[in-house]
Amino acid sequence: MRVITSVAAMQRLALRWRRRGARVGCVPTMGYLHAGHLSLVRCARRLVGPKGKVVVSIFVNPTQFAPTEDLARYPRDLKRDRELCRETGTDVIFAPTERQMYPADYSTFVVEERLSRPMEGESRPTHFRGVATVVAKLFNIVLPDVAVFGAKDFQQAAVVQRMVRDLNFPVKIVLAPTVREVDGLALSSRNKYLEGPLRAQAVALSQAIAKAREAVKRGASVKADALRSELREFIEEQPAARVDYIEFFNPVTLEKVDSVDRRTHMALAVFLGATRLIDNGPLDGKGG
Amino acid sequence: MRVITSVAAMQRLALRWRRRGARVGCVPTMGYLHAGHLSLVRCARRLVGPKGKVVVSIFVNPTQFAPTEDLARYPRDLKRDRELCRETGTDVIFAPTERQMYPADYSTFVVEERLSRPMEGESRPTHFRGVATVVAKLFNIVLPDVAVFGAKDFQQAAVVQRMVRDLNFPVKIVLAPTVREVDGLALSSRNKYLEGPLRAQAVALSQAIAKAREAVKRGASVKADALRSELREFIEEQPAARVDYIEFFNPVTLEKVDSVDRRTHMALAVFLGATRLIDNGPLDGKGG
Repeated sequence: MRVITSVAAMQRLALRWRRRGARVGCVPTMGYLHAGHLSLVRCARRLVGPKGKVVVSIFVNPTQFAPTEDLARYPRDLKRDRELCRETGTDVIFAPTERQMYPADYSTFVVEERLSRPMEGESRPTHFRGVATVVAKLFNIVLPDVAVFGAKDFQQAAVVQRMVRDLNFPVKIVLAPTVREVDGLALSSRNKYLEGPLRAQAVALSQAIAKAREAVKRGASVKADALRSELREFIEEQPAARVDYIEFFNPVTLEKVDSVDRRTHMALAVFLGATRLIDNGPLDGKGG
Repeated sequence: MRVITSVAAMQRLALRWRRRGARVGCVPTMGYLHAGHLSLVRCARRLVGPKGKVVVSIFVNPTQFAPTEDLARYPRDLKRDRELCRETGTDVIFAPTERQMYPADYSTFVVEERLSRPMEGESRPTHFRGVATVVAKLFNIVLPDVAVFGAKDFQQAAVVQRMVRDLNFPVKIVLAPTVREVDGLALSSRNKYLEGPLRAQAVALSQAIAKAREAVKRGASVKADALRSELREFIEEQPAARVDYIEFFNPVTLEKVDSVDRRTHMALAVFLGATRLIDNGPLDGKGG
């Protein structure tokens, strides 16, 4: 396994792989890897086969953080990430420096203007511009045939898929299911922030999704507003929890629905103290 | 020579070429080809060699026109373009439909936020967003090793080069010199609009650049403001001419300079009646 920090060296290697006809799979991450990331790496390996190349990018991308957010304290542990990638059969870790990715006079961005508007886009207005930009860059540097994203960041995956379609990137996007703790908490590098009683309270997110599923199973007609209020109340029973949003939407267009049914997708963001967690799932009871 | 109108078919062919290791050169155009375009096609052929593939894209890109501009009346003649491309050794004309390039729910754009601000960007605020977007799409569809742009659209080339650097497209951008009529008028598809006396008056643009060169040759210190006023007056001696802008700038950063010298680049836009023409050149007397 190689660790490459230079953009030019990574792209040269990718062009060499291309000339040899090797299939390349890319797993873009911000590092501090957990079992969720590793499931993406294994998925990439399955997709490119034993002779293919799997690149895990590790880059805490500054352009997707707002000035008020946790860029500086975002957890990092490249040494541990290295071990985990090696054990999971990664060929290359691409871990560029910020200056390599964004030179001083950097000035080009990719903006997606529909799917990026609601939910995370409303709470974090410049977030998806940063995501789309860095993913476009990674695709041009790593030149993958396939890239694997986690379903836990559902809206991110939707924005990336739309970008790929709109800008015609010759890259296939694959979504891998959310990996959860036994109590249902979706794995996230930010779970590290959950100290003391916060960890136990964090289970409210996945429980809220389960409750929405039950409501859909029971009811012929479930009003989004009523369900939202009910779930907000349920979550905020946890003393440290404050709901940022709970949204019910069409999983293709990400348009809000007034009436929730089995075709509806739910997403939510909740602050637990200073830590903001997200989760989502389809309401058809098929998991996610 | 093939004419391809489907995005998917073009990308499939490009991927096939790539697997065979063929070098690909791309010349993005809006059609209504003239000798300037053909010089770009010949340049692309030289760059990819006799075994390489040359793709000329012909697409009047709606996203780079403002609602008030000449999208609808922009000249088109695919039959003639076909003949010219064939004679110049083009392998493929890629002429997609608008719907192919921009499906109804299209929502992703590429924005360059520095070099695209002055000059054309000031007069045509959404222009370079459209240019950067369509060029990014073309690069992902045609997958060229090299793309050739005309120096006549100097700022466009600068924006595209910056986009390629920032988004790490594995594409080399080559600039080919402006082709001019014998009297100095830069070739442009929009010259077709110049009826009757307008054609003769259009020579004022290149003459203004020549006058600026002379001023630089003569003077130790040439003030941009004074030179601009002088040239504006000179151009507007032509009864149908109205200057949109005359700018003196650093050709790398596109930043305005107050004091004009041999390192300065000049660009201007002039309305001749309803027709807007642009031209530019370095002031070192080496042409362009």
